[in-house]
Amino acid sequence: MRVTYRELHGVLLAVLTRAGLDPSRATLCARLFADASRDGVASHGLNLFPRFVRMIRTGVVDVAARPERVAAHGALERWDGSRGPGNLNAHHSMERAIALSREHGTGCVALANTNHWGRGGNFGWQAADAGVIAICWTNTLANLPPWGATEARTGNNPIVVAVPRADGHVVLDMALSQFSYGALASYRMRGEQLPVAGGFDARGELTRDPAAIEASRRPLPIGFWKGSGLSIVLDMIGALLSGGRATCDVATDAEEETGLSQVFIALDGSALGGSAGAARVADRIIEHLQSPDGTGERVRYPGERTLETRGRNLREGIPVEPSIWQAVQTL
Amino acid sequence: MRVTYRELHGVLLAVLTRAGLDPSRATLCARLFADASRDGVASHGLNLFPRFVRMIRTGVVDVAARPERVAAHGALERWDGSRGPGNLNAHHSMERAIALSREHGTGCVALANTNHWGRGGNFGWQAADAGVIAICWTNTLANLPPWGATEARTGNNPIVVAVPRADGHVVLDMALSQFSYGALASYRMRGEQLPVAGGFDARGELTRDPAAIEASRRPLPIGFWKGSGLSIVLDMIGALLSGGRATCDVATDAEEETGLSQVFIALDGSALGGSAGAARVADRIIEHLQSPDGTGERVRYPGERTLETRGRNLREGIPVEPSIWQAVQTL
Repeated sequence: MRVTYRELHGVLLAVLTRAGLDPSRATLCARLFADASRDGVASHGLNLFPRFVRMIRTGVVDVAARPERVAAHGALERWDGSRGPGNLNAHHSMERAIALSREHGTGCVALANTNHWGRGGNFGWQAADAGVIAICWTNTLANLPPWGATEARTGNNPIVVAVPRADGHVVLDMALSQFSYGALASYRMRGEQLPVAGGFDARGELTRDPAAIEASRRPLPIGFWKGSGLSIVLDMIGALLSGGRATCDVATDAEEETGLSQVFIALDGSALGGSAGAARVADRIIEHLQSPDGTGERVRYPGERTLETRGRNLREGIPVEPSIWQAVQTL
Repeated sequence: MRVTYRELHGVLLAVLTRAGLDPSRATLCARLFADASRDGVASHGLNLFPRFVRMIRTGVVDVAARPERVAAHGALERWDGSRGPGNLNAHHSMERAIALSREHGTGCVALANTNHWGRGGNFGWQAADAGVIAICWTNTLANLPPWGATEARTGNNPIVVAVPRADGHVVLDMALSQFSYGALASYRMRGEQLPVAGGFDARGELTRDPAAIEASRRPLPIGFWKGSGLSIVLDMIGALLSGGRATCDVATDAEEETGLSQVFIALDGSALGGSAGAARVADRIIEHLQSPDGTGERVRYPGERTLETRGRNLREGIPVEPSIWQAVQTL
């Protein structure tokens, strides 16, 4: 089932308005959820929306809360998300990091006390649309055993890296687990094995069986010990700079996951000169990556599929899961 | 065979002085090589040193060249490494990023036209010793097939992330390949299989056989498609911000690898307040990671083994490969 972007946005906007967001914030919040579905990330768009509304109703998310700057030193700022809507807090923080980078060349906003940011890639596209390079990440509840442990003691801490480009931004949006629990469930429901090992089974052996990993609760970090280390340092930087919580401080139930820490770094190289040549560098890298190498496969750059999916969904409508689409309309 | 730090440094210093570095630069350059061996990374310390000296003699590395600032915008600066010694250029760039972060809260130096930085972790320890958080990376020659390709068209682009901590800094230093060619050779020479799949064999199957990967030249990026994407965006940001070369512009012979692009980001959160609490956050994360979980294994935080190795090597002497140690003394 497919719906137009306008329909999708309108339904989400109506729900958010009823939930108490004021009009401009409801419009942006709905757009960020709708953009995720439009770009092929329904898991962080429409499909995440019912949980978001439940978390408003249980008081975990405070729709009236606005982010507040609590400390600043030049191009580095610390903000308190006040447990407001996570995607609005993150959007505001990236906007602020962009503004700092215009003034100082680079800017960094560390955000404490916020909520799940939805689809992290949104904030990469936001920066790239503004012509700015960005690196941002969030910590999460504990959902990933660090290397050497069997229990989830770190987060999959998604990181987004964005590079603006005239012919399509390059935006990497990845969690530090090899497969999310959502992805594991999708493979299981399709009756498929994972393309590569995604975690450990109950006996502690690497496995491509998604159900075995769901049962053991032992998904793999990307690169085994390497992604585990990256997850740990990103959590640490987020909590240190924001003055907020680390993964070990966050509730382990997804519907109670709050008080997250995030970091938004923007880099505006436009004042350094050479921007025409610089633009060609990104194009040249992509051309080189994609020149035929005899295997018949084509290397994709990060964000390429996003643009293709976005184009098709805007032409043909955005796929929605009918049961979720129905349920959302009655929220 | 083990030698004292003083012996190791003295021998390297003498060679560098003969090679034409002036005294203070020779001292620092020797220290950076010696520190790598001291910390257990001989592959990027003593064992890399003969190649470095050869590259001075062939003119790839210009010992007289100093980095020059070519553009600046507030906390963001672009420097030209002028093909000087890579570790000196990188050390200077991190020093400059640290200084910018003291003034602006955050600082970023993009460095073009430089050489192999040796052990990247040095620059993470440098920042952490200065009390500053750092993220830095380098591009490299093409040594890694991006996901979907069989040819090396991206670099393993090592990234370093450092967090200062009173009881031992947390420093992640990792290339974006799962195993370096040096690591593959070590496993092969010990007659061991890799602990996890490290690349593809000639038939295109994932394998733990190091020799098969050396033969196919198809090592794996960390996290498969994820590390591949990260490698691409880091290369792009380095070339864009520095105005320098991307991996696709760099010679593919290691002894001719030059004109690299690097990025050094420093974040000084000390002016934001709450530093005592912030210090406890890092300790609390580590305590949580390392609390027993019934498996008998202990999670290591990034940098923990480095400190252990450093301590042992300073007490017992630094292990050196006798043939390399002899050869270096006659350089």
